[in-house]
Amino acid sequence: MEIERKFLIRKDDLPQDLASYPCHRIEQGYLCTSPVVRIRRQDDDYFLTYKSRGLMSREEYNLPLTAEAYEHLKPKADGILITKDRYVIPEKDGLFIELDVFHGEYEGVLLAEVEFPTEEAANAYTAPDWFGEDVTYSTRYHNSTMSQSWQSDYCSLHSQ
Amino acid sequence: MEIERKFLIRKDDLPQDLASYPCHRIEQGYLCTSPVVRIRRQDDDYFLTYKSRGLMSREEYNLPLTAEAYEHLKPKADGILITKDRYVIPEKDGLFIELDVFHGEYEGVLLAEVEFPTEEAANAYTAPDWFGEDVTYSTRYHNSTMSQSWQSDYCSLHSQ
Repeated sequence: MEIERKFLIRKDDLPQDLASYPCHRIEQGYLCTSPVVRIRRQDDDYFLTYKSRGLMSREEYNLPLTAEAYEHLKPKADGILITKDRYVIPEKDGLFIELDVFHGEYEGVLLAEVEFPTEEAANAYTAPDWFGEDVTYSTRYHNSTMSQSWQSDYCSLHSQ
Repeated sequence: MEIERKFLIRKDDLPQDLASYPCHRIEQGYLCTSPVVRIRRQDDDYFLTYKSRGLMSREEYNLPLTAEAYEHLKPKADGILITKDRYVIPEKDGLFIELDVFHGEYEGVLLAEVEFPTEEAANAYTAPDWFGEDVTYSTRYHNSTMSQSWQSDYCSLHSQ
């Protein structure tokens, strides 16, 4: 079970020391969005991911692919491939912030996710000052939704 | 972990009372064959299946799909769709024989599979008299191999 909350971030509110945190290059595409069947390259690792339907809580399976299998499946993805840099920033209580800096069609969009061990912990979480709007319950900010078609208002809204 | 052995069956050796056993109609296609990423319709249930590489023993995950998701993924399958009737026949020691009667391009091919709780049980298994050649270690009789292109010699060999 994956339990996470998701927040928009304004560019001006990014941590000054962002470059000091570990960063992964991610490319991902969607073969299906309900349920989610996703392929992802993260640096030199490749995965097929299945996520059941849901917003804050979803069942998730991450299954290894070879580079060849990933390249075979890539043309089967619908819509656009999502590319982003993911910074991993330590947060209080042993949590981690995954800060996604989008590139390509979504250049300028910034989203932070925090994963929790329980729904109670997720509901009790107080976000740091630099986090913006809580979009946990908006399917609009699912990467699967974003992959289906480019929507110019994502960038005009969030690159202020 | 899925541990199974697979055998060819000759048409003349089929059990006389085959029609008395439970039977499922199966349609399946492959998005990828190494590792296996398979979609399957079994009667009115739909699944995405992932199998790691291997012959007798493979890790397997069966994840539910909706009918809509299955139909969405079907055009992404490579090669041909496999269609077959699967008869489920009780076997000694609490085991079950899954007898696949292929249709479509593979009309006439008959394959029996038996799934085991351990590799020891699989190795110790004595097949009933009506089973033919043990093809457990032949990738040729993986449905994933069969889906990639129709090979006429499957039928000439096994419909005798």
